[in-house]
Amino acid sequence: MGWRRGSPWTVLLPRPHGKSFAHRSELKQAKRIVVKLGSAVVTRGDECGLALGRLASIVEQVAVLQNQGREMMIVTSGAVAFGKQRLRHEILLSQSVRQALHSGQNQLKDMSVPVLEARACAAAGQSGLMALYEAMFTQYSICTAQILVTNLDFHDEQKRRNLNSTLHELLRMNIVPIINTNDAVVPPPVPNSDLQGVNVISIKDNDSLSARLAVEMKADLLIALSDVQGLYDSPPGTDDAKLIDIFYPGDQQSITFGTKSRVGLGGMEAKVKAALWALQGGTSVVIANGTDPKVTGHVITDIVEGKKVGTFFSEVKPAGPTVEQQTEMARHAGRTLASLLPEQRGEIICSLSELLTEKKDEILSANRKDMELATGRLSQPLINRLSLSTAKLNSLAIGLRQLAVSSGNSVGRVLRRTRVANNLELEQITVPIGVLLVIFESRPDCLPQVSALAIASGNALLLKGGKEASNTNKILHHLTQEALSIHGVADAIQLVSTREEVEDLCKLDKMIDLIIPRGSSELVRDIQRAAKGIPVLGHSEGVCHVYVDSEASIDKAIDVVKDSKCDYPAACNAMETLLIHRDLLRTPIFDQIIDMLRTEQVKIHAGPRFASYLTFSPSEVKSLRTEYGDLECCIEVVDSMQDAVDHIHKYGSSHTDVIVTENEETAEQFLQQVDSACVFSNASSRFADGYRFGLGAEVGISTARIHARGPVGLDGLLTTKWVLRGEGHTVADFSEQGNMKYLHENIPVPQGNFN
Amino acid sequence: MGWRRGSPWTVLLPRPHGKSFAHRSELKQAKRIVVKLGSAVVTRGDECGLALGRLASIVEQVAVLQNQGREMMIVTSGAVAFGKQRLRHEILLSQSVRQALHSGQNQLKDMSVPVLEARACAAAGQSGLMALYEAMFTQYSICTAQILVTNLDFHDEQKRRNLNSTLHELLRMNIVPIINTNDAVVPPPVPNSDLQGVNVISIKDNDSLSARLAVEMKADLLIALSDVQGLYDSPPGTDDAKLIDIFYPGDQQSITFGTKSRVGLGGMEAKVKAALWALQGGTSVVIANGTDPKVTGHVITDIVEGKKVGTFFSEVKPAGPTVEQQTEMARHAGRTLASLLPEQRGEIICSLSELLTEKKDEILSANRKDMELATGRLSQPLINRLSLSTAKLNSLAIGLRQLAVSSGNSVGRVLRRTRVANNLELEQITVPIGVLLVIFESRPDCLPQVSALAIASGNALLLKGGKEASNTNKILHHLTQEALSIHGVADAIQLVSTREEVEDLCKLDKMIDLIIPRGSSELVRDIQRAAKGIPVLGHSEGVCHVYVDSEASIDKAIDVVKDSKCDYPAACNAMETLLIHRDLLRTPIFDQIIDMLRTEQVKIHAGPRFASYLTFSPSEVKSLRTEYGDLECCIEVVDSMQDAVDHIHKYGSSHTDVIVTENEETAEQFLQQVDSACVFSNASSRFADGYRFGLGAEVGISTARIHARGPVGLDGLLTTKWVLRGEGHTVADFSEQGNMKYLHENIPVPQGNFN
Repeated sequence: MGWRRGSPWTVLLPRPHGKSFAHRSELKQAKRIVVKLGSAVVTRGDECGLALGRLASIVEQVAVLQNQGREMMIVTSGAVAFGKQRLRHEILLSQSVRQALHSGQNQLKDMSVPVLEARACAAAGQSGLMALYEAMFTQYSICTAQILVTNLDFHDEQKRRNLNSTLHELLRMNIVPIINTNDAVVPPPVPNSDLQGVNVISIKDNDSLSARLAVEMKADLLIALSDVQGLYDSPPGTDDAKLIDIFYPGDQQSITFGTKSRVGLGGMEAKVKAALWALQGGTSVVIANGTDPKVTGHVITDIVEGKKVGTFFSEVKPAGPTVEQQTEMARHAGRTLASLLPEQRGEIICSLSELLTEKKDEILSANRKDMELATGRLSQPLINRLSLSTAKLNSLAIGLRQLAVSSGNSVGRVLRRTRVANNLELEQITVPIGVLLVIFESRPDCLPQVSALAIASGNALLLKGGKEASNTNKILHHLTQEALSIHGVADAIQLVSTREEVEDLCKLDKMIDLIIPRGSSELVRDIQRAAKGIPVLGHSEGVCHVYVDSEASIDKAIDVVKDSKCDYPAACNAMETLLIHRDLLRTPIFDQIIDMLRTEQVKIHAGPRFASYLTFSPSEVKSLRTEYGDLECCIEVVDSMQDAVDHIHKYGSSHTDVIVTENEETAEQFLQQVDSACVFSNASSRFADGYRFGLGAEVGISTARIHARGPVGLDGLLTTKWVLRGEGHTVADFSEQGNMKYLHENIPVPQGNFN
Repeated sequence: MGWRRGSPWTVLLPRPHGKSFAHRSELKQAKRIVVKLGSAVVTRGDECGLALGRLASIVEQVAVLQNQGREMMIVTSGAVAFGKQRLRHEILLSQSVRQALHSGQNQLKDMSVPVLEARACAAAGQSGLMALYEAMFTQYSICTAQILVTNLDFHDEQKRRNLNSTLHELLRMNIVPIINTNDAVVPPPVPNSDLQGVNVISIKDNDSLSARLAVEMKADLLIALSDVQGLYDSPPGTDDAKLIDIFYPGDQQSITFGTKSRVGLGGMEAKVKAALWALQGGTSVVIANGTDPKVTGHVITDIVEGKKVGTFFSEVKPAGPTVEQQTEMARHAGRTLASLLPEQRGEIICSLSELLTEKKDEILSANRKDMELATGRLSQPLINRLSLSTAKLNSLAIGLRQLAVSSGNSVGRVLRRTRVANNLELEQITVPIGVLLVIFESRPDCLPQVSALAIASGNALLLKGGKEASNTNKILHHLTQEALSIHGVADAIQLVSTREEVEDLCKLDKMIDLIIPRGSSELVRDIQRAAKGIPVLGHSEGVCHVYVDSEASIDKAIDVVKDSKCDYPAACNAMETLLIHRDLLRTPIFDQIIDMLRTEQVKIHAGPRFASYLTFSPSEVKSLRTEYGDLECCIEVVDSMQDAVDHIHKYGSSHTDVIVTENEETAEQFLQQVDSACVFSNASSRFADGYRFGLGAEVGISTARIHARGPVGLDGLLTTKWVLRGEGHTVADFSEQGNMKYLHENIPVPQGNFN
């Protein structure tokens, strides 16, 4: 229909007839969708009354999908509950009028209501429910139609055909059919009577009704919403119950159904049978929770977008393990990796380094495939980042060999040793963090680098690379596993399928200990937003300042400002704001800086104070917090070093800030006061980098204030554990009645060699 | 009315006539509430169509409050927009029937609609909007009544009185009046004509209508929802614009209104005038966003619960600064604290220690006040925790003096020094984290301890103590500031008002760097859940294991198990699960352990394997992950040390795990393999504690895997920064064309003295 806002019609390709979708990512293509709403979804309220907000947001999502050009159908429950509500209300109203005539305030509130009969409730509820659906869908310019069905409507061939053609006609007219069982004439079915095989399914609840209907109408997708998250491998609430992401028909025996299912009529077993029946009929099925307030507002659209919500039923079992299984395998093998000798981890890295040279041809050939696929689809800078060469591989191999050497002393290093008491010794030692998830874009050379870092630090690793480099990543990962296998820990590093959504990975908070995004600051920001409960190592912003003091040397100021801004303007450690001491305005040093910036074609934006000093000012900045990431910068005037520090604290991102001055005392004050990860005097901001700092390999740059800050080397991938060795010591021994005393003597440890 | 679920009637005390509420926390008492819905709330859709889900959840909240016994009124907008919608729909329907007779599919979708006249839309929309409200409220057994008003209804005395008595009658009948301007007969008002003083307010938009109505009806609270977050001190979007939490009439001149307000008719300035008018009439006002999907579902109930949502208008300006101002003051003074000499920080701590002894009487007298107030209201254990004594103060003072001595080397310690190149030297030094928020319950002795830790580490500190200790906390905080003032940094430690909600504090993510909860594991869990984007240092669970190996010594096993479980069962480092090697079953060591547990009255729960070995088994555990925190534990049987490790990895919380064995190789394997913060051999789990580890003061115990792990001392309150000193160095100097080379020579640093 005519009225739609901001939702272009999705191009939906026809689905191969009779085949359900193999992957969640294909659900985007679903054209005809049946949404089944369990009565818990329609009528169970949270605090009081019915779940109106929930119903409205479900209508909202169905409307969005309908207005994308899909054909939506709703199978609804809840008429009985609605009827109860309505009849109570009517009775109360009629009573209240009578009572109000001869009673005071508040008596209404305590009035009791008669017990209501279910069939009458169904009749009364049906119209109320439909009125509500209609009122809601009208707001989206969508018409609805009411269809009441009974079991017989599917068994009688004539009735079945009538139903079928009516529904098709409605869909053709862009009308959303709302289907319910005719509870007023048909009694609620007997629970626990089995479904009759796969070819016939008896309609005894809305699960079987919706499955029957979806197959009859050749729907692409059936979304069954109730108050359970989906299918669990054991009864929910038991110690090891896990939500199943994808369920395959063959897996049925691996499921233990709880005896007391909360889902009532039909229960989970019946839901699964109905889902499998629909699947065999060619309709994909997702069972999900429609009552969880955290997801209700987008559960249906999320499912259609292919996100991991509830349980997806698929006929096609993929060859590899799921990402959850990969994580488990990685953690397990990672523990073995961590228990190897440092030399053994070094051997693995050296072996990987050798393989990069030996298997050069295979790698470059895989890379050429990616390049060919990318040509014309990606921009030239992205293609450059994608491409490998013999030279790149050689320098990679050299870097890895260096890392192998320097990593000897990372895991198991003793940081501290204390004699707590006689024969009670405490050690704090370095251990790996656990399972890392590294998400990287484009550059496939990231893969062996990051893998070597994980190996050196004894961490398990999940790698999620970009689709554009999938062939190159595959061979590089294969070589990494080959190297790992020399010590039997091939599984410690896993390549995650390109089909997995980054957002879903960021939710695996019990399985992944640290996420490291390697790529643009947009990537980092997105991941920081998506990560729920998992720490993210990275910085999303670099608003770096260079402050040129009144006592700066002309040459140093020019050199440092030029290098900070122009060496690589897209880097996070490039200067964004130049702070100039007021006394320098209209002096040679100021003019020379401006000339240099003009020569280098840097576009200048004026801060408010700077603008006020100029007659013809450059454009004034919109915000003093802008990260230009290009040959652009802001210039602002400050009164003093202290004023510069205040400006940096107010507008900076605590990444890297620089002072240029010949006055050592001013420099030291600045270095002491500025509260950023890196603070420099008379040196370019571009030095803020793991390699330039001499940390060996760089894990990333962090602007977080805890754990690791600034450029992060191998140490950022380590944590510590406390090991205490006693001889049956108890704390009671140290109480007033006990016979022991704490000594707390520091025992010297070898000087820490931080790499 | 009769039907309500789980919402007991709130007891609402009468409000002193004509006075608005002084604090948000008093809003819970609001009985008569006007909710004003701007047209953006009622009709502006997100993806397509109208904002139905939003409207429904607003109805839901109004219904909840109504069913708590409050008297709710709604002032609604949106009739015109609704009418547009409805008329379009009707026109399309009538066209579509005709077209369907002689056209193919999809043509409907491209049909255009005529331009509609606003007044007609209003008439058509009014009934649709009311029908929707009625359908929605009916679901909560709540009746609604429609009231259309015009400007004249308030000016004509007779009409005004009629309106007043009608509304009162409706409220008395427990009916929710829904009020709108009669747009069909009255033209939309002229914008930008001023409100007429404070005694008269002309009704020209729904802001002024709702203000007029709220005062007329002596409402306690007016909630004005639109699509802005509230009132900002500068136009939203500018660099420093801050949402004002509480606005006082006198503050009006401190606000800069943007020239281009997005809120259209009336704009923000008019909203504020209307709010101030209502306030002066005795009605409290909150302006908030009703369109933000993150809060829509609970914006109204949150406001009534006193949470920090939008801008609260109050006549009573509190004496002290807001918590945001306190945080700013703390950060500022904290930077000075960090720049002091270590000896100066030590002096402050010593001075605090002395004050605790000197001002003993004042402290104990304040403590007695708290105790008296608590008697009968708190349980005896809580009262014990609340009470201070001379002995407690003395031992506190001694602890503080020790900390003053040991803290000398915390801030500014050089961890690493590198000669990057000639005359380019890099240092990594320890610096404070920034602003800490410590939330503690009951025990007021926590305050000086935590304060001393913050002073020693140079951090700014916000303290949030429990209401039950407010008098004691006040005097202790006063003494802390007295001690800080000897070096001019009194503001570095702030005591947050007991009125502030913990949940609101946990949202100050740009202002607070680390949250440390000190108290029950429930407190920690709640805070971990509430903290958005701020790291939390703490552990919420301690499921600790003791594994008794087949080669364990009888005596050590008995001692370690007894101490681990019985020394202090409520502690997080107490044993929850005892793992026994299979070979020990029915041996003397096993029998003696069981006897000891029986003697100590420890209730035993059997793990599934243990239960299978027994004929008369104790109750089987519900979950192997239970933290009993009492004289209860689970016993489970394992086949080997490796099996014990696997059990611990599967069911443990990575806090503290212990092996008892005489076989050193088995012990070392266990210590190496178990991936917990603390792993012990032949020593009680109760040693996992900062004091027993010899860390001096304990900040807490962390089961996080990054930053700090296990018992955390002062080091956990420090981070690092990188300081680079050059002579105009640029990275270009080191390029292939440059004339410099990286040296990366480690320069020895004094052996790190970890405290």
